[in-house]
Amino acid sequence: MNATAKKLVTIEPPFIFKNGSVFNDPITIAYETLGTLNTKKNNAILVTTGLSPSAHIASSIDDSSPGWWESIVGKDKPIDASQYFIICVNSLGSCFGSSGPSSKDPKSGKKYRLSFPEISIEDIASSIKPVIDGLGIERLKAIVGPSMGGMTALSLIKQFPGITDDLVLISAASSSRPFSIALRSLQRSMITSDPQWEEGNYNQDDLPLEGMKHARFLGMITYRSPTEWNKRFGRKLIQNIAERADLFGNRFQIQDYLKRRSDDFISDFDPNSYLYLSNAIDAFDFAEDCDDIEETVENLDLNRVLIIGVEEDYIFPFQCQEDLYNAFSTQKYSVDLLKLPSINGHDSFLVDNENFGNALAKFFK
Amino acid sequence: MNATAKKLVTIEPPFIFKNGSVFNDPITIAYETLGTLNTKKNNAILVTTGLSPSAHIASSIDDSSPGWWESIVGKDKPIDASQYFIICVNSLGSCFGSSGPSSKDPKSGKKYRLSFPEISIEDIASSIKPVIDGLGIERLKAIVGPSMGGMTALSLIKQFPGITDDLVLISAASSSRPFSIALRSLQRSMITSDPQWEEGNYNQDDLPLEGMKHARFLGMITYRSPTEWNKRFGRKLIQNIAERADLFGNRFQIQDYLKRRSDDFISDFDPNSYLYLSNAIDAFDFAEDCDDIEETVENLDLNRVLIIGVEEDYIFPFQCQEDLYNAFSTQKYSVDLLKLPSINGHDSFLVDNENFGNALAKFFK
Repeated sequence: MNATAKKLVTIEPPFIFKNGSVFNDPITIAYETLGTLNTKKNNAILVTTGLSPSAHIASSIDDSSPGWWESIVGKDKPIDASQYFIICVNSLGSCFGSSGPSSKDPKSGKKYRLSFPEISIEDIASSIKPVIDGLGIERLKAIVGPSMGGMTALSLIKQFPGITDDLVLISAASSSRPFSIALRSLQRSMITSDPQWEEGNYNQDDLPLEGMKHARFLGMITYRSPTEWNKRFGRKLIQNIAERADLFGNRFQIQDYLKRRSDDFISDFDPNSYLYLSNAIDAFDFAEDCDDIEETVENLDLNRVLIIGVEEDYIFPFQCQEDLYNAFSTQKYSVDLLKLPSINGHDSFLVDNENFGNALAKFFK
Repeated sequence: MNATAKKLVTIEPPFIFKNGSVFNDPITIAYETLGTLNTKKNNAILVTTGLSPSAHIASSIDDSSPGWWESIVGKDKPIDASQYFIICVNSLGSCFGSSGPSSKDPKSGKKYRLSFPEISIEDIASSIKPVIDGLGIERLKAIVGPSMGGMTALSLIKQFPGITDDLVLISAASSSRPFSIALRSLQRSMITSDPQWEEGNYNQDDLPLEGMKHARFLGMITYRSPTEWNKRFGRKLIQNIAERADLFGNRFQIQDYLKRRSDDFISDFDPNSYLYLSNAIDAFDFAEDCDDIEETVENLDLNRVLIIGVEEDYIFPFQCQEDLYNAFSTQKYSVDLLKLPSINGHDSFLVDNENFGNALAKFFK
C-alpha cells in the first residue's frame, strides 16, 4: 500500500469560468512535487498533463508507486529531481483529487455531475496559478506540456506572461483540427449514448462501461500508429480461435491486445470527467481573441521554446507543431523544433523513453 | 418510382464455404448489367463492389435512379456502356438481393441471421462465377475492383486463372493491416454490443441503430482524410450552438456533418450483413496458401494490370498498392501503378470523379 504524495490547494470562491459561469463553491486542485525548491525559488518545472493522467508523475518517498512519466521524471532522470523542483497538477475537471463533475457539491453532498460548469483549457490553466503562487514561485524555470497539457501550457503563458522562463510543448497544438475533433466527438457520443450513462447521473456500481470501453478502444487505435501495429502485430493470429469468434473480433493479436487494454483502463476514469476534458480539447483555440497566432505569442517574456512532435500523430499532426514553431519563431525567443523518429504516434512521449528522454535531458542539462 | 434493373442467378446447392460449411439451400446472387454484350462476348467488364454498395452501379432504362458509381459508369462515361457490357454484382452476404444473413431460410421461413455460414472474400468471388458463366462469358475484358471489391477481384483471378484479360485494383490490398483491422473490429463491437442487436436476432422495427450510427460515424472519419476535413470544415462553427450542446458534440460543422451523414446511412444496411462483410475483409489474405504474394500472381493469364491508390488512405494505405504493384511486376503482365492526387482518402474513387474518371477513361479507351 502506497502512501500518497498528493497535496491540495483550495481556491476560494467565486471562480469565474471562461463560459461566464460564476462558481460559488471552493475549488480544490491536487498536485504532487518532486525534488526541492531552492532558496531563490527559480528551479521549478511545472508539468501539465494530457487528458487522463493524475498528478502522480513519478514515484517518490511519499508514494513509491510508479508514476505516469516514471522514465522521464525523477532523480537522475531526464527531468532531474536532484536539480529541479517538479510540480505536476491534476487538471481541473479530472477525477484524481481536483474538482470536477465527479467531486462532491458541498451543498447537496452529492456529486456535481453535469451541474459542474463547462470546463475550458483556459479554466484548467487559471486554476493552476494558485498552486504556483501558493508555493511562492514567481517565475517557473519551465513548463512542460505534452498533448492536452501543451494547450494548458499555452493558455498559462497567454494568461500570465512572464510565468515561465522556458516552454516545452510535446505533441501539442494551438487548436484541434476537424479530424481529431471528429474522433473525440465519436468517443463522447459512445459514452453519452450508453444507456448506463443516464444523462450523466450514472450509478457508480453500474458505470457506462461499454461506452467507455469503446471510447478507449478508439483512443488506443488513434493514439498510436499503423507503423507500430505493423511491426508489433502484423497479421499474427491469437492461439485457440474460438469457433465464430472472428465475427466478434478475436482472430488477430491486435484485436485481443486492444480489447484487453481498453477493458483495463476504463474502471479508473470518471466518464463525466472524460467528457468535460475531451470537449475542452476540441474547443481550445490559442489564437481565439487575436488576429492570428503570431500576435498571440508576442511579449510573452519567454527565454527558450522547445517544440517536439513525431510522424503519424492523428491527434495533433506534426503540422500543428510546425505551425507553433513558425509562430514562436517570429519573436526573439530561442525556438527549436524537433521531429523525433518515434513510431508510437501521439503517445510516443509515454512510450519512446529513449528519444524523448534524450531530447528532454539535453534541454534541461 | 423506379423499376428495378436487378437480375438474379440461383446457385444450386450444395455451396461449400471456405470455412468448410456445406450449405444445402440455393444461393441467390443479384446483379445488374449496362450496355450490350457483343457477339464474341469479349467486351464484358465486371465491377466488384466495396462493402456497402448494391449492384445498382449506374442508372439505366430499367432503373433511372442514380447508381453508386454514376459519374464513372454509363454511356460515354469513363467506363463506357456504349462500348462495354458492364456487370455489377451484389456481394454474397450483402442485403440487396444476394443471399446472406438477412435473406430467408426456405426451411423456416425466417431470416438466416447468424445461422448463415461465415462468409469469406473467396466465397464472394466464387459466387460471382456462376453469374459470368450464366451470361455465356468465357473471359472478361476486365475486372474493376475498388476497396473490398479489389480483394474479391484478386480472389477471382486466383481461383479462376484466365477469367479476365485486364485487372484494375482501386484503393485495395492483398490483405488488411492491423490498423484497419482494429478500426473494423471496433465498428463490429459497437454493433454487437448494442442491446438492440440481440445476438443477431434484432427486431426489424428496433434495429441496433446506435451501434450502426457509431460504426458509420467511424467509417465516415476514416474513409476520408484530414486534409479534406481541414479544407472543407476547418474549425467552422455551426449556427445557433445550443447551450451545453458542445458536450454532446454540436459545436463545429464537422460534427454536425458527420452526425447527419451517419444518421442517413444506417437505415438501409442490414447490421448482420455489415458484420459478415467487415469480418471477411479482415480475414482475407491473397497470399494465404502460397509462400509469398509473388507466387500468388504467377500464371494468372492476365494482360494489363492497373493499380490505383491515393495518399491518406487509412483503410488500405498506398503501401498496400505498392506491394501489389511490386508483386504483379515480377510477372510478364503490363503493370501500372497510379497515385492520384485525391484528397478524399479511401473513398476518393467515389468522390474525385475527375481524377478517377480520367485514369479509368484512359485505361479503357
